[in-house]
Amino acid sequence: MIFFDKVAILGTGLLGASFAFALKEKKLAGKISAWSRSPSTREKCKARGDIFDAVCETPWEAVKDADLVLICTPTSTIARLLAQVSKSLKKGALVSDVGSVKGSVCRDCSKIMENTGASFIGSHPMAGSEKIGIDYADSSLFTGRPCFVVAEKNENKLGQKVLGELWKNLGMKVFFANPDMHDSIVAHVSHLPHLLAVVLCAQSSEFSGGDLRDYSGPGFADTTRVASGSPEMWDSICADNKIQILSALKDFSADLQKLISALENSDTEYVGQILRKAKNYRDALGNAK
Amino acid sequence: MIFFDKVAILGTGLLGASFAFALKEKKLAGKISAWSRSPSTREKCKARGDIFDAVCETPWEAVKDADLVLICTPTSTIARLLAQVSKSLKKGALVSDVGSVKGSVCRDCSKIMENTGASFIGSHPMAGSEKIGIDYADSSLFTGRPCFVVAEKNENKLGQKVLGELWKNLGMKVFFANPDMHDSIVAHVSHLPHLLAVVLCAQSSEFSGGDLRDYSGPGFADTTRVASGSPEMWDSICADNKIQILSALKDFSADLQKLISALENSDTEYVGQILRKAKNYRDALGNAK
Repeated sequence: MIFFDKVAILGTGLLGASFAFALKEKKLAGKISAWSRSPSTREKCKARGDIFDAVCETPWEAVKDADLVLICTPTSTIARLLAQVSKSLKKGALVSDVGSVKGSVCRDCSKIMENTGASFIGSHPMAGSEKIGIDYADSSLFTGRPCFVVAEKNENKLGQKVLGELWKNLGMKVFFANPDMHDSIVAHVSHLPHLLAVVLCAQSSEFSGGDLRDYSGPGFADTTRVASGSPEMWDSICADNKIQILSALKDFSADLQKLISALENSDTEYVGQILRKAKNYRDALGNAK
Repeated sequence: MIFFDKVAILGTGLLGASFAFALKEKKLAGKISAWSRSPSTREKCKARGDIFDAVCETPWEAVKDADLVLICTPTSTIARLLAQVSKSLKKGALVSDVGSVKGSVCRDCSKIMENTGASFIGSHPMAGSEKIGIDYADSSLFTGRPCFVVAEKNENKLGQKVLGELWKNLGMKVFFANPDMHDSIVAHVSHLPHLLAVVLCAQSSEFSGGDLRDYSGPGFADTTRVASGSPEMWDSICADNKIQILSALKDFSADLQKLISALENSDTEYVGQILRKAKNYRDALGNAK
């Protein structure tokens, strides 16, 4: 079923390109136009004429006549890019993004959309990878992963519904949330684990008793894997979701202090309890990949 | 090549049973005798007569005439078990263990071995799994994993060499270390990541905005996987390696505070630097499984 006659994708990195691959594979879009800031990425898109019907030099050319525009650039650039293309949008067009932080993005983008006849609803498909770029694009990237559709509760309900159905058709588990709740959830489920892995790796790199990696097993490898993520992307996430991230980090730090005190005082009851609580929680998650 | 005519394995959980499977598969041992505290585990061993030549009701029966005794029980029980079997050991027998903490174990066991004619050298094959018990035993468990052979530098050099060769023949990368250095290394590479995952899971279980697991992706799953480990085993590790673990936790906590301060002060230079340092470190580890 074709959801949109024309879809424009701004930014064809891992997510944007995978989205295009998936749309064409599942026949959910008629034509796909694309724009990328990078000339070499544009060349790679042109080489995939089976996926991209048009590859444009500017974002405003790409969005022309598009029914859906998906902005797949770093969070800090989304609103600026939307402002650049806002006058070129088709009346009634739906615009979304794939940024991992939503508070400022949804606020800024909704404001830009005022009086344009088009509308913005945020998306956050949680389907990244530490591998970035179109070279790793994969139409199955979204399968089985969670996706947030993010807007204030009563904002453009039809737009929310259509977007939710689209992501479901790509195999995603869709959740609806307002921007603040979304940002708190991802701070805890994604940004906090990431920064813990980062601090762990940075600390390990300074260990004085030899290269710890020589002695590491699958536990260390798994626990730290996300630290391979793009520093530029995470710089931006840290800035954009600063308040929620700080709140999660401080909660974690306080709980870590409690564990340190418990160990110092040989409080085996506390230690046993937290070990069991964590195991019960993690066991029920299974080996989700 | 048969290394030992008779090997006794005390404790046939995941590690002990996998060791037996691997020895027989690689023809490194003549006969294998086994003891387990649990009657049902002993029954499972008896059902594998191709692996276990004798399954004994008591540990002292199992070690009789054995050239190598491998103690595969929780760290806190190793010295006690060794004391129970010390009078039944063959003269010249080599005793080792698979405990993940070595300071107290090596000290206590070396003392017990005085004047017995047998000797103790610690081992720590880093090849556990969150799956425990003989049902998950796997002869390839050790392949490609690190293994410590642990003793004071000049202690029974021949014993250290033989043990190192044995683990190498099971496919392990062997490292020699004294007990304190070993305990510091594993505190950083294994115990610290484990406890961070535990605190993260315990904190996540109390999140007020819904079940975070619904929204979790492979990052959260990987970062927390080790928290499924056995609480009993980790209770024991926390007690046995308390000093080194506290040192690693406090270092981590201090580094976490630095990151919190940097985020609060929008110190993008610090944040960018730690993200890049962590990425460089983790990238070089690869996808070791």
